[in-house]
Amino acid sequence: MKDIIVQPASGKLGILMPGMGAVATTFVAGVLASRKGIAQPTGSLTQTANIRLGKRTDNRNPKIKDFVPLANLNDLVFGGWDVYADSMYDAAVNAGVLERGLIELVKDELETIKPMKAVFDKRYVKNLDGTNVKTAATKHELVEALLEDIENFKIANDCERLVMVWCGSTEIYHEAKEVHASLANFEAGLLNNDPDIAPSMMYAYAALKSNVPFAMGAPNLCLDIPALEELAKLTETPIAGKDFKTGQTLMKTIVAPGLRARALGVRGWFSTNILGNRDGLVLDAPENFKTKEVSKGNVLDGILDANINPELYGDIHHKVRIEYYPPLGDNKEGWDNIDIFGWLGYQMQIKINFLCRDSILAAPIVLDLALFLDLAKRAQLSGIQEWLSFYWKAPQTLPELEPVHDIFKQLEKLENTLRYLMGEELINNLGMDYYEDVDQEIEA
Amino acid sequence: MKDIIVQPASGKLGILMPGMGAVATTFVAGVLASRKGIAQPTGSLTQTANIRLGKRTDNRNPKIKDFVPLANLNDLVFGGWDVYADSMYDAAVNAGVLERGLIELVKDELETIKPMKAVFDKRYVKNLDGTNVKTAATKHELVEALLEDIENFKIANDCERLVMVWCGSTEIYHEAKEVHASLANFEAGLLNNDPDIAPSMMYAYAALKSNVPFAMGAPNLCLDIPALEELAKLTETPIAGKDFKTGQTLMKTIVAPGLRARALGVRGWFSTNILGNRDGLVLDAPENFKTKEVSKGNVLDGILDANINPELYGDIHHKVRIEYYPPLGDNKEGWDNIDIFGWLGYQMQIKINFLCRDSILAAPIVLDLALFLDLAKRAQLSGIQEWLSFYWKAPQTLPELEPVHDIFKQLEKLENTLRYLMGEELINNLGMDYYEDVDQEIEA
Amino acid sequence: MKDIIVQPASGKLGILMPGMGAVATTFVAGVLASRKGIAQPTGSLTQTANIRLGKRTDNRNPKIKDFVPLANLNDLVFGGWDVYADSMYDAAVNAGVLERGLIELVKDELETIKPMKAVFDKRYVKNLDGTNVKTAATKHELVEALLEDIENFKIANDCERLVMVWCGSTEIYHEAKEVHASLANFEAGLLNNDPDIAPSMMYAYAALKSNVPFAMGAPNLCLDIPALEELAKLTETPIAGKDFKTGQTLMKTIVAPGLRARALGVRGWFSTNILGNRDGLVLDAPENFKTKEVSKGNVLDGILDANINPELYGDIHHKVRIEYYPPLGDNKEGWDNIDIFGWLGYQMQIKINFLCRDSILAAPIVLDLALFLDLAKRAQLSGIQEWLSFYWKAPQTLPELEPVHDIFKQLEKLENTLRYLMGEELINNLGMDYYEDVDQEIEA
Amino acid sequence: MKDIIVQPASGKLGILMPGMGAVATTFVAGVLASRKGIAQPTGSLTQTANIRLGKRTDNRNPKIKDFVPLANLNDLVFGGWDVYADSMYDAAVNAGVLERGLIELVKDELETIKPMKAVFDKRYVKNLDGTNVKTAATKHELVEALLEDIENFKIANDCERLVMVWCGSTEIYHEAKEVHASLANFEAGLLNNDPDIAPSMMYAYAALKSNVPFAMGAPNLCLDIPALEELAKLTETPIAGKDFKTGQTLMKTIVAPGLRARALGVRGWFSTNILGNRDGLVLDAPENFKTKEVSKGNVLDGILDANINPELYGDIHHKVRIEYYPPLGDNKEGWDNIDIFGWLGYQMQIKINFLCRDSILAAPIVLDLALFLDLAKRAQLSGIQEWLSFYWKAPQTLPELEPVHDIFKQLEKLENTLRYLMGEELINNLGMDYYEDVDQEIEA
Ligand SMILES: NC(=O)c1ccc[n+]([C@@H]2O[C@H](COP(=O)([O-])OP(=O)(O)OC[C@H]3O[C@@H](n4cnc5c(N)ncnc54)[C@H](O)[C@@H]3O)[C@@H](O)[C@H]2O)c1
Ligand SMILES: NC(=O)c1ccc[n+]([C@@H]2O[C@H](COP(=O)([O-])OP(=O)(O)OC[C@H]3O[C@@H](n4cnc5c(N)ncnc54)[C@H](O)[C@@H]3O)[C@@H](O)[C@H]2O)c1
Ligand SMILES: NC(=O)c1ccc[n+]([C@@H]2O[C@H](COP(=O)([O-])OP(=O)(O)OC[C@H]3O[C@@H](n4cnc5c(N)ncnc54)[C@H](O)[C@@H]3O)[C@@H](O)[C@H]2O)c1
Ligand SMILES: NC(=O)c1ccc[n+]([C@@H]2O[C@H](COP(=O)([O-])OP(=O)(O)OC[C@H]3O[C@@H](n4cnc5c(N)ncnc54)[C@H](O)[C@@H]3O)[C@@H](O)[C@H]2O)c1
Ligand code: NA
Ligand code: NA
Repeated sequence: MKDIIVQPASGKLGILMPGMGAVATTFVAGVLASRKGIAQPTGSLTQTANIRLGKRTDNRNPKIKDFVPLANLNDLVFGGWDVYADSMYDAAVNAGVLERGLIELVKDELETIKPMKAVFDKRYVKNLDGTNVKTAATKHELVEALLEDIENFKIANDCERLVMVWCGSTEIYHEAKEVHASLANFEAGLLNNDPDIAPSMMYAYAALKSNVPFAMGAPNLCLDIPALEELAKLTETPIAGKDFKTGQTLMKTIVAPGLRARALGVRGWFSTNILGNRDGLVLDAPENFKTKEVSKGNVLDGILDANINPELYGDIHHKVRIEYYPPLGDNKEGWDNIDIFGWLGYQMQIKINFLCRDSILAAPIVLDLALFLDLAKRAQLSGIQEWLSFYWKAPQTLPELEPVHDIFKQLEKLENTLRYLMGEELINNLGMDYYEDVDQEIEA
Repeated sequence: MKDIIVQPASGKLGILMPGMGAVATTFVAGVLASRKGIAQPTGSLTQTANIRLGKRTDNRNPKIKDFVPLANLNDLVFGGWDVYADSMYDAAVNAGVLERGLIELVKDELETIKPMKAVFDKRYVKNLDGTNVKTAATKHELVEALLEDIENFKIANDCERLVMVWCGSTEIYHEAKEVHASLANFEAGLLNNDPDIAPSMMYAYAALKSNVPFAMGAPNLCLDIPALEELAKLTETPIAGKDFKTGQTLMKTIVAPGLRARALGVRGWFSTNILGNRDGLVLDAPENFKTKEVSKGNVLDGILDANINPELYGDIHHKVRIEYYPPLGDNKEGWDNIDIFGWLGYQMQIKINFLCRDSILAAPIVLDLALFLDLAKRAQLSGIQEWLSFYWKAPQTLPELEPVHDIFKQLEKLENTLRYLMGEELINNLGMDYYEDVDQEIEA
Repeated sequence: MKDIIVQPASGKLGILMPGMGAVATTFVAGVLASRKGIAQPTGSLTQTANIRLGKRTDNRNPKIKDFVPLANLNDLVFGGWDVYADSMYDAAVNAGVLERGLIELVKDELETIKPMKAVFDKRYVKNLDGTNVKTAATKHELVEALLEDIENFKIANDCERLVMVWCGSTEIYHEAKEVHASLANFEAGLLNNDPDIAPSMMYAYAALKSNVPFAMGAPNLCLDIPALEELAKLTETPIAGKDFKTGQTLMKTIVAPGLRARALGVRGWFSTNILGNRDGLVLDAPENFKTKEVSKGNVLDGILDANINPELYGDIHHKVRIEYYPPLGDNKEGWDNIDIFGWLGYQMQIKINFLCRDSILAAPIVLDLALFLDLAKRAQLSGIQEWLSFYWKAPQTLPELEPVHDIFKQLEKLENTLRYLMGEELINNLGMDYYEDVDQEIEA
Repeated sequence: MKDIIVQPASGKLGILMPGMGAVATTFVAGVLASRKGIAQPTGSLTQTANIRLGKRTDNRNPKIKDFVPLANLNDLVFGGWDVYADSMYDAAVNAGVLERGLIELVKDELETIKPMKAVFDKRYVKNLDGTNVKTAATKHELVEALLEDIENFKIANDCERLVMVWCGSTEIYHEAKEVHASLANFEAGLLNNDPDIAPSMMYAYAALKSNVPFAMGAPNLCLDIPALEELAKLTETPIAGKDFKTGQTLMKTIVAPGLRARALGVRGWFSTNILGNRDGLVLDAPENFKTKEVSKGNVLDGILDANINPELYGDIHHKVRIEYYPPLGDNKEGWDNIDIFGWLGYQMQIKINFLCRDSILAAPIVLDLALFLDLAKRAQLSGIQEWLSFYWKAPQTLPELEPVHDIFKQLEKLENTLRYLMGEELINNLGMDYYEDVDQEIEA
């Protein structure tokens, strides 16, 4: 086993967010409330989950935050950009996710957090109209401005380290082109205003240039281009993406592995979502919806592998719908119908109705990603962080690897990575040694 | 790693079933139909699942049956006991699980399988009245008769090896007493007709005495007593139990690990089942229902561990109901309402409606257990087979171990056991080596 | 058409409630809030529904309260009895139905409403322990005390008229006996403390003796006995019951008429309810549940009439379950599975999940019943008010009549009764005159 | 009351169907099977429903077919047109609605029913390609050919009377134009091949010209134009439409009246449908889906009337989706989420999952419409038959009348029309006479 030295998490950690809407404000308000002891950061692995170490009978199950050296909630500082100039307090009230009473209790701190001017391009987000926007002659100059914002924020807030987590809107669907194929091309494109460089890519570029780890919360193309992967390796900065795994897709990557586990066949999976928040409004534009649809569409393929088992998974009708339905507000509702078959081809159905809350599920992911990416940086990990696949609808991996969507394999990878970083034995659930005299260490 | 020699699966394997009702007939008819190529044994890991070997990029995913030496479907022979004298053909028609057309195609073979006289005691199964029943002065004599049945069956059918899988009814709830505390006590109890020795225990005793592996498909106490664990060790015979994991409990051990994975809290889980078959009728008697209820009731505790994480799982209202509702016939329907909470305590709900078919889900389990127990025997494994936990609502383990209910950990244990038996590398999903230069073998 | 003179609704109307728990406080707080214009009394026919008059093309659709002379919300005064001494403010907070913020806005008025000492008998309600209870040597004396309470309340509050609506707990199941068979027997029973005279019957007796209309919100036997029917006729006082029709039963009497309308057959109807309030706790006692079960069990029979149409409705498996499940609080959830069949016997299913709020659905019923019973009294209607069937799970009718459960027939009866009282043409939806020259008035 | 003479239903009645797909074959096979006593025509009012006559206590509830003079099932003859030349036997097998075993039992009769060449225009149905199609220089000539088909069929099958029920595909959405504004314009359009005259209009024109009542089972514009209403009046022929009310819309017109009955407010109604048959394939084309969407979209407006009650129904988000999802085949599944509010604005939700079978629900409607339109003709009713609104998603009415969508008002209208035709007292559910001495006849 390699010897890994993880630097301590001393000093302040700044968390920068392009996009300060429902998810970002729910995240920040929640951290502030948790710090005050008003509420619990439930749903965050870094704060509330335990990790088993050693044998089952050892009873060693520390909290993750007591096992790996993570930044403390008290050391976090928040900042970001948005096309609307509202403070985080106003934005939280508008988002309508949290009860007014709770927001008021952290109003003072929220009010001081004001978005910097955004890099924005309406062609990439059809249904928004904000005016808190940078203007410049070239994309290169916009990036320069972001670099300055980052530097200024770090100094002003006395931060030791920074991470950046995209909480901005979903951009329209576009595919990688020549301009994305190498860092050189990309930088040329910045200079000559290439239309295929999306705003989110400029934030990511600025982050990586500044040695700041970057995570992509939306399904945007952004990080998934050779240019930025190259830059991440060059500056030894961790990156991870994309599209926070919440709601229906979360359920899908829980249930599908279960069907595969029992070798049950799948004929069809119909999923519809109804939601009424600003994110829903953005996704009401077909080109933006396409980006989300593609991101959501692949999760089954990775789990129910038609190549390996065509009899069971070779002919699945998978259809995903997202419907803007204002009565729900930030509550999202998923309805799934799953057509399965078992012994002798007999058919069965599973119907799942998930009455969830989007931003409530996303906020702890923002926290975990910020803390884990900061950990990765301190552990000298760089480039794509596949061990964070757990958090993504469309996990970024090396080009030659298929992403793993099974949430349980993702979790095992995450946990074993933490054990590995801390020099603990890995766990593989064999457990023969409880029952037999075996001359090996591996257990379960 | 220990050197394990697995004996080859040559010759015929006899599968003996106490109880030849819905599950047993669906199993046998299905194997016969599969042998003829009329239908597929979907849902059986031994027949249709693949197992990954080596690195992800190796693309080695053989079918399990091509990886470990299992008895071939063509080498199986079937027999058993029932309190009703119907042939397997008549029993299959009565069960109403399979379409008549399919049954007719294997009628000839099904008709030849006639149940031997059962060891039965109406006190243990209130709602049944069968007459195909052995009579004898003592339980000892009943066991003698079973031993003879077993021996005769083996000879008559020219079997190399046998396994026994209980597919009989759920017996009333009772707890382990003095008579169950040791093999000596138990054998004394057989002689003096101790009322606490249930019929299913006599079948198990006879099996183990004959070196025949035994699996307990119902939630009966049966194997869970020191007397029989002692006998299994003594005769070096594998045992496994109890209560086939199908339907709602299957879903529960899929979904609960997913909630725990994301560190979501759980406030309540309400489960109701409606079913209309003979099993439902038996469970309509409160004392028999109790046995099932206890078996179903613990699955959450093992997964959502209140000891380790009391904030999230310390106050769960878990309620399970089973309702006899004739319109459904053998179709069973589960409805679950799950009350969860996330970030800052915000509440959400998941509702799952599973339109399943009980015997269709149970039949492939009978097949897998028969083949895997036979494999275990040939691999010199004996006593409790915890690696088969995957198949059980209430997995039998060493007294000092908590059972693992998480179906994904159960599957990993099962698969790693197979890899271990065949001398293949274990899998733990770390996969660091894809991304870094690591001087170790472990991967994902 | 008979000439009916409806007395005007002048002066104050006192509404007396035995039982001041979730329903009663939600009702009173809601009326107070509506009076202040803070919220709307939605779900109340008297306040928010319209009634069509004349031909469809006449466009005459007044609000019911503008059509018939009802007491005005501003003229209502509230009082009652409970075994707990909490004021209505404290009781409302405990009930946990309404948001605290709303309750605070009507706190002043709620606080002044304190329950009088109750007539209570723990044998009739197993799971309650209150001490705000009257004691006396005989049931006769208890009734005397109630009569005094009524008189005192009327004077103290300067009321013109009173009505009484039982909002107390469900009593245990019992059947009518000799003591209930006539008014004479009943009055003898009061004197000699007959154990079969339930507390609710004493309230009803006292009300009728005082010429106060009485409605029975629980499924208690109470009004359904010859003794009290006799007294109602004698004192010319309207009565109506029983068991407020809310939640799942409401849905059932909506959906079942629809199935019958299309002549679809029904094989089974499985209903389960989960609820977590004090009402749920009371119903957790089997003897109290029985009362509710019987009340809920008959609604289908009246709608899906097996006598008239045995092919479609002769063999329905109807099962109703109520489960106490604390995580839901006052939110109640119903899940229905309906097995139907159509053309050539082909089977279909309907599943309904109703996420409802019990007291929110019941409160407007209390209001409507109070106002309509007061109207009935002023219109010289007396005895059983079948036209109020609309509000009941188990509508009281003349012994020789089968109750009508179809909510649409109930509504038509209610509306046509109002039209009839006001001398308006009845509506029968024929409407031939729009299309043809017909020499009649009746239309639709 | 007008004196109505209904001619007897003597001789054979021919039922002509343009479109012989799933619905038509399920209808015909079902009538044939019913005639043989193999199966029951459940879901048909004419065959299986009862109608109450007189007072509740009279116990007069004859079957409708025993009350009004309808054609007997044994006197029906079937024919029609389709763009595919398959016999009804082949079409029934292809449709996949009925079990093969049942179809075989009526194979002989089904095989003899072969479709005549269709009047077809691919512009109106994008996703079909059939070749069994008439060709002619003008639409006028196509109509001539249809007139001949009708006449020939009547003679060849020795029919006394005919009716025509459109069971063909949904045509694209188009609106009424000048050519539809009068019979004269329409006939000119036939001569000069006006592109706005859809195939279904030509069938309807031919039927009316031949004095054959016509019903429009699809949501096609067809009958809803002045030209054809004029022709119907001219030839004294009954017409009725449009779009068979089955599945989700059926449920909607059952549940919505229930919400309105209780004065519950509605904030949103989201409906999605998944279906996998040929009808689903046709509706997969956006222009054809639009026709269906419009037809389905209005049912709520009529029931939850925002004009009359804007507080409750003034702001409803109503969204309807239809999704082509092949795994379901002819099984259709609807999922509805209904957001309602009650007392003080508190919110609740209803979720309905309807696992239905489209053609099974539609077939009895075809039968009822055929028999009732024939009855109407014999009772000298002509033009729009609003009393048949019960069967339609978008009932045709006089231009000055709003359609009634409430299925219970529709049923009452239908039943009172039958009572009216037979000189029986109408029913309005008042029922005062049971309880009082009233000097009137009307009761309930
Ligand atoms: N909430 C979830 O469960 C979830 C799950 C997966 C992904 N996501 C994604 O997370 C993102 C945030 O979701 P949300 O609910 O907070 O949405 P939101 O609409 O409330 O917030 C997004 C914010 O980003 C801002 N923005 C857009 N473009 C920007 C730019 N170029 N620079 C700076 N700010 C910009 C918008 O003005 C808005 O305030 C969305 O892309 C969403 O698709 C959310
Ligand atoms: N089907 C499932 O999904 C499932 C899941 C878990 C457990 N189980 C258990 O499997 C068992 C079989 O289920 P099933 O649906 O086939 O039930 P079943 O009632 O159709 O068959 C059980 C048979 O066992 C026979 N029997 C009872 N006592 C016996 C005895 N002492 N000796 C011999 N025969 C005896 C009965 O006569 C009956 O024919 C039940 O205990 C059930 O609880 C089934
Ligand atoms: N909420 C609904 O949807 C609904 C529907 C139908 C019927 N009901 C019935 O309405 C009644 C009230 O429901 P709730 O939710 O308000 O229940 P609750 O338990 O909150 O209130 C009932 C109150 O009655 C009091 N009580 C019991 N016996 C009494 C007596 N003899 N004299 C005076 N007070 C007495 C109890 O102390 C309690 O405070 C119950 O019987 C319930 O079954 C309610
Ligand atoms: N099944 C239901 O529940 C339901 C409900 C409401 C309306 N409908 C409508 O009823 C119609 C029939 O439904 P289905 O399921 O039988 O569909 P289907 O596709 O199985 O059958 C329709 C048939 O009409 C034929 N056709 C199309 N255009 C024609 C033309 N111009 N002349 C003659 N034949 C023509 C097609 O070839 C096809 O065979 C559809 O319009 C459908 O929208 C069905
Ligand atoms: Na154990
Ligand atoms: Na109209």
